[in-house]
Parts: sequence; structure tokens; C-alpha cells
Amino acid sequence: MLKALLEPKSIAVIGASRTPGKIGYVILKNIMNYGYKGKIYPINPNANEILGLKAYPSVLSVPEEVDVAVIAIPAQEVPKAIEECGKKGVKVAVVISSGFSEVGNVELEEKIVKIAREHGVRILGPNIFGYAYTHLNINATFGPLEIEKGNIALISQSGALGIALMGWTIMNEIGLSALFSVGNMADIDVAELSELLADDPNTKVIAIYLEGVKSGRGREFVEKMSKVTMKKPVVVIKAGRTSRGMKAVASHTGSLAGSDALYDAAFKQSGIIRASTVEEMFDIARAFAQQPLPRGENTIIITNGGGVGVLATDAAELSGVKLIEPSQNLINAFKQTMPWFGSPRNPVDLTGQAVVDNYIKALKVAVESPEIDNIVILYCRTAILDPRDLAKAIVEFYEENKVNKATVISFVGGQDTYDAMKYLNRHNLPSYPSPERAVNALSKMIWYKKFVEHKTRK
Amino acid sequence: MLKALLEPKSIAVIGASRTPGKIGYVILKNIMNYGYKGKIYPINPNANEILGLKAYPSVLSVPEEVDVAVIAIPAQEVPKAIEECGKKGVKVAVVISSGFSEVGNVELEEKIVKIAREHGVRILGPNIFGYAYTHLNINATFGPLEIEKGNIALISQSGALGIALMGWTIMNEIGLSALFSVGNMADIDVAELSELLADDPNTKVIAIYLEGVKSGRGREFVEKMSKVTMKKPVVVIKAGRTSRGMKAVASHTGSLAGSDALYDAAFKQSGIIRASTVEEMFDIARAFAQQPLPRGENTIIITNGGGVGVLATDAAELSGVKLIEPSQNLINAFKQTMPWFGSPRNPVDLTGQAVVDNYIKALKVAVESPEIDNIVILYCRTAILDPRDLAKAIVEFYEENKVNKATVISFVGGQDTYDAMKYLNRHNLPSYPSPERAVNALSKMIWYKKFVEHKTRK
Repeated sequence: MLKALLEPKSIAVIGASRTPGKIGYVILKNIMNYGYKGKIYPINPNANEILGLKAYPSVLSVPEEVDVAVIAIPAQEVPKAIEECGKKGVKVAVVISSGFSEVGNVELEEKIVKIAREHGVRILGPNIFGYAYTHLNINATFGPLEIEKGNIALISQSGALGIALMGWTIMNEIGLSALFSVGNMADIDVAELSELLADDPNTKVIAIYLEGVKSGRGREFVEKMSKVTMKKPVVVIKAGRTSRGMKAVASHTGSLAGSDALYDAAFKQSGIIRASTVEEMFDIARAFAQQPLPRGENTIIITNGGGVGVLATDAAELSGVKLIEPSQNLINAFKQTMPWFGSPRNPVDLTGQAVVDNYIKALKVAVESPEIDNIVILYCRTAILDPRDLAKAIVEFYEENKVNKATVISFVGGQDTYDAMKYLNRHNLPSYPSPERAVNALSKMIWYKKFVEHKTRK
Repeated sequence: MLKALLEPKSIAVIGASRTPGKIGYVILKNIMNYGYKGKIYPINPNANEILGLKAYPSVLSVPEEVDVAVIAIPAQEVPKAIEECGKKGVKVAVVISSGFSEVGNVELEEKIVKIAREHGVRILGPNIFGYAYTHLNINATFGPLEIEKGNIALISQSGALGIALMGWTIMNEIGLSALFSVGNMADIDVAELSELLADDPNTKVIAIYLEGVKSGRGREFVEKMSKVTMKKPVVVIKAGRTSRGMKAVASHTGSLAGSDALYDAAFKQSGIIRASTVEEMFDIARAFAQQPLPRGENTIIITNGGGVGVLATDAAELSGVKLIEPSQNLINAFKQTMPWFGSPRNPVDLTGQAVVDNYIKALKVAVESPEIDNIVILYCRTAILDPRDLAKAIVEFYEENKVNKATVISFVGGQDTYDAMKYLNRHNLPSYPSPERAVNALSKMIWYKKFVEHKTRK
């Protein structure tokens, strides 16, 4: 049933509008313009045609099957629409409309769920901005159009933040496979969507903005998510960490259960990675999306600057990333890659004199050494090494050698450094503006790898 | 003496070169092109003219006084140059040259210090990339040319990182008053430069990348910095937080004393704000640079999105920012600024329906209320409110009303949101891509304010 969201042959937009700016207009336009190849049915009793498509007075009058119906009509009219969806055999109703439990109208929300259950329709929402599945060019949201394609699935319990994050991901070229606004979670909830995404071949990692799990469903959440995390990494930012934040959540999403310590325990038990900020959530998700899982925990830092090397070393120690003590053999090998005053230990300091060649030689040693599982590449802007040249060479090296050691990168400097990192990110080498952020992302990958291994062994 | 760095009437470049790319060429060019109005004397025995300026064979042959000499010649020749500087009455020698204690050549370093002391010359360095003082258009570094002007002074104990951070500040439009590379700190150290900057009218806050204080000078550091922080806020990122990081520092800067816990205690005692990452250091420095000190700790959050409001609330609670419970009067006043379904408490949630007018009305209430000391403005991208319009209106409001309540801002969204924040930053309203970073910066301002008050009262 739920799977229809990821493979609809047709989408109806109930409440499709001819008026630019209206939600029913924007959603229809986004579905069309983002390139969905299935059938699209605008539903509006007062229109024959909308945006060049034939419109129907009711979903019941559509001549063919309808898999998914997006509903953007006043709350009071939603029950009837759900009933019609049921009669029509619609699998999932994506209820954009607000005016339900979030404004105290619990009864109306219970009513639509009851009708949906009677007719075997599943409900996403209500009170959401829609959903997207980029692999099939579905953008059924009233957010921005040009969602970047990729393999991070994003679930947001906050509508406003979710839309803002769409813009954020576009600006930062963070590729999404899917995007779900869950709103009031009257029926489909975060855990169920995670289960769906765990089996989606286009999703590598699931990122969630969570305000809370519904009262009484904590155990179910842990059980379901424990299975999900065995298939895919899940990164959560949980809002309402403090009692005051919790109060703010309550006034925002409606009453939710559990203290933050409970959530923390639940996440740990389920193998969920917890991020502290929105930035960190995407930092971690990008690493999982772009890199193979770490083979082990043994990590080397390669740098051209002592300062960034120290910052990364601190970050590694503080986040539990194991920096190896290179063997004499390895030390000798690294020695060949650097000027005489460089340091062949860990961090491997190629010195400020390093050029592309030094980096590639050192990377070659690191990739070939069985002592090393993971690589942190750092670069500090110098006059003699253009970061864009280095980025190109690294990408070439990784592609040619099909490197499968988990790697994170940080280049520190100005605009050209930033451009170089953009290039690295586009080529699946996750790069971060500070060494600490790079190392932190890697630490979560290693933690996840260990969690899965440990659980599998049991 | 040291003050000559901030008011030189003339600068000599010993080792000025005609060869593009050479350090002695880049430094001379940067000094000229950044617009320094004082006299510039290239010193080079093999040239009559460099970059259109008359060159002299030795600093001794310069007909007029020389306040500052930048030295970029091989290490072995530095002692003689220092001696000549001494004879000439040069006040500060900025020794770019490397090849001293950082490569084990302690003797040579001690020698130049001895000569300098005998002649009353002070030494910055050696092994540095130079210094800058933007108020007098001095860029005596071999880093990027176009340093953004402002009122943050940056001191870096790492040369490579310091240069990279120059690029970073330019890209992020972070304005600097001064920039010092301290290198081996053979003579002038971080504390002494901080004292100098504490009295500099163009510096509002001092940001320091510190690897360590020289062995045996810990007490002196605390004493000096305690006085500095009573005049100006100081934000430090201390590398070598972990034992492994410390080891990396040792191999990078030479041996240094003290455990991280000692540093932590020293910072707290001195009133120094400690940042964990380079990003955080600038986040905090920007807030101090652009905003008045908080009058007190009572803070209000104004938002159009529940989600970001919750994230900010959590961040406030976790960092000790006191969110006020608004009085009934204040609640009534905020109620007038929002739709009926908004929340007039704290966070003040203007809802996703908010337009410019709602924000400005709410800001007016916040600015006028005696209950409120500090303001956190949040915005989450919505279709009905262009972030650039909001940014303009906020700037106008703050300028017209000469608002003097400490304010930090976070807008979440895509490119236009980013542009809006750039605009805010340019108009002295510190803005951050995530609510957590905005609140964190404010929390340090409040901490500092309390520290100074507490110490003054004693």
C-alpha cells in the first residue's frame, strides 16, 4: 500500500487550482514541471482544464486508476474526499490540508482516519507540505521545484522547517532520493516511512527531523527502527531536547510523550545516529550517502598544514575515531611522499610545500596499506597548490583506483577552496569547511559500522 | 615600541624581491596594493628599484626613519639584518624567515633575540606569514591581498591555518582590524599582542588560534589576559585539546607546556571564551564585533516557524541563555502582532503566515519592552515572505530606531535566504545558517557580560 508512494502510475491532485500562488496550483505545477512521467489528474469541480491538463469534478470521475491522491482543500471537505478516494481504490491520500489536531480539531482528524481505514486508504499527513521521490521525478510539494537528486531520504515533522530545508539542500547541492512531510502523523508515521525507505534501492541513508513519537508508541518505534538501521543508517535531529524545548514542541506539534533521556536511550538502542544541529545531520548524511561504510576503525589523517592536522586530531580523539600508529614500513612509505621536514606519522604532514604529486603519492600509500581503513584528507590554502587542482587530482585518483576506503575531506581557505570542495562533493567525496566537521561525520560512520557488526554477531 | 605595528610611518621590506611569486615580492606588493600611505623601503643589495620603488642595499642606507622592518631572507642572514635594524632604530622586526626553532635550530633563534634585545628591537616571529592592520591599509603578509576591513583582530599561532583563514574571512565577509601571525613567538607573544589590541580603538574583539603558551609562562599569560578581557572580549580556539592532539602540536610548533584541563582553567579564570571549532570562533567574534554587549540575560525568540523555534529553544536551554516568561502585558502586546493561531509566548511564533509587518511589529514590542534584553530573530523560508524583503526591513528598523539590544539572527532556507543573511551581516546584524549557531554566539556574549560585571563588582 504505502509502497504506492514510491511507484505511483498516476497522481490526482484534489483541489488543483488555476490560481497562481494557491497551494493546489503550486503542487500541480511542481508535479508537472519536475518531470513526473505518470498520469496526472487535476480534480476541481469548477474547471475543465488546469495548466493544460483535463480536470475532473471528482476523483471518482477519473476514467483510469489513481494510485496516489494529493488533497489540498479546506479541512471540512477532506472527509468526503477521503471517502471518494476509498471508493476509487486510491492507495495513499497525501493530505496537505491543515485545520486538524494541530489547531485542536482532533475530532475531524479522527474522522478522516476512520473513513480511510474503512476504505483501505492510507493517509500521509494531514497538515503537510507534500512529498517527493526524485527517482521518478515526483515533486508533489508546494516547496521549491528543483530538488537535487541523490540518495538521502529526508523526513520532516515540521512543515515550515522541511520546506526551508528543501531550499537548503538545493543551495548546498545535497541530493535527495525522497522527502516526506509527516505533519500530524494521523496514520502513517516516521517509523513506517523509514521501513518503506529501508527497502528503497535509491535511498542510502535516512535523515529525520523529529519532534516526537506519539504517546504510547515508543516501543513500536524502537522495534521498527532497530530493523531499519540494520538495512540503512538513520540520522535524527530530535527537537525538544530540553524541558523548555519540549514545551515549545508541545505547542507546535501537539502533545508528545517522553523525556529527552528516553529518546536518547531509544535512539542508542535502535542504532539511530543523533545529530545536534541541522548542519550536523546533513554533514553525517552526506558522508553515508557518498562513501562506502568504513571497513574498520583505523584512520589516517593526511594534511599539508600542521594546524588543521591538530584540529582534526583533537576532533578524532574527542569523537572516538581511532588514529593509527603507523608501522615502520608505513612510516618509510609515507616518508617517500613528502619533503624531508614533513612528518610521516599520523597526521601525515606533507608540509606547506606539498603539491598535487605529494598528496596523490601519500593517498596511494594510504589506499594500499592494510593498516588503514579510513582516510581524512586535509588541505590548508597555500600559494603553491591551487585547491581546484588538488580536488581534480583527488577525484581522478579515487575514480581510477575505485578506492573503497571511507574518506572525508576538509579544505580550509577562501572562495577557490570552497569551489574545490563543491567539485569534490559533486564527485561523491564528502567535503566540509572545517576539519572538525569532516572527522565528526566519519566518527558517526564508524560508530554505525560497529553497531551493525556487533548486532549481527549477537 | 610594539605600538609601532599599529602606527608605522614607514615600513622596510628586507629581502624585497623583483621575482613574482617570491615571498619578498608578494609582501612588498601586498603592502603597496592594499594602500598603505606611509613610506615603503624595499631593501635588496642587488636592485636599484623594485615595483617602481627605490631600493636600498641595507636598512642602514635608508635616509629616513624606519619604524617597522619586514624580514624575508634566509635564516642565516637574519642576525645581521636584526643588528642593522637595531642600529637604524627600527622598533619592530617582523621576521617572516623560517629555519629556526621549528626545525630544531634553537640556537639561531636565541641569537636573533639576543641581538634584538641588545639593540632594543622587538621581534614578531620568526616563521610567520606577516601581519596586517587594515585601518592603516597595511597588509604586510604573503597571504591574499583583499583583507576585509572590520573590527575583529585575529592572531594565529599556525601560519598555514592563518593564511587559509585569511581566505575564509574574505569569502565570508568577516571584517578584520588586525591580523598577526606569531609563529615561534621568540619574543612577542600572544598575550602581549592581546594587550596591544586591547587598547586599539579599531578592535572590538580578539580571536586567537592558540597551540600553546610557552613553558613557564602560564601565570603571566593568565595575568595579562585577565586584564585584556576586562577591556575586550577574547575568543580562543585552542588546538591540542587531547593528548594525541597535544603530541601533534608538539611536532608542529615545538614543545609546549600544560594539559588541556590547565588551559581550560586558565581561560575561565582569565575570562577568555573558548570555541571548539574555527567556525564557532568566528561565529562568536562576529556577534561581538557587530552587536552591543547584552544589557542582561533576558532573551526572547521571535520566529515564523515552530521547528526552528524549538531548535533555538533547545540551544538556549543547553547553553544557559535565559528565555523569559513574558508578563501578561507583554503577551497581550505580542498577540497584536500575529494571526490568531500564533503563539505570543517565548518563542514568539508569528506563524508561517507572517509577513514583514508582523516581524516589525513584534520587534517593536521586543525593543520597547523592559522585560527583554536580547533578541533572537528566526525565519524559515515561506512562499509568502521573501527573506530579502524581511532582511531589508529589519535593517531599516534597527537603523532607524538605533536599537541597542543585542540581537542574533538565523534564516533557514535556500539561496535567497543566504543572500538575505549576507545583507544582514553587512549591516551589522550577525546572522547564521542555523538557529543553534545564532543562539550559541549570543550565549557567549551573555557569559562574557556576566564575567566582566562579576569581576568589576568584586
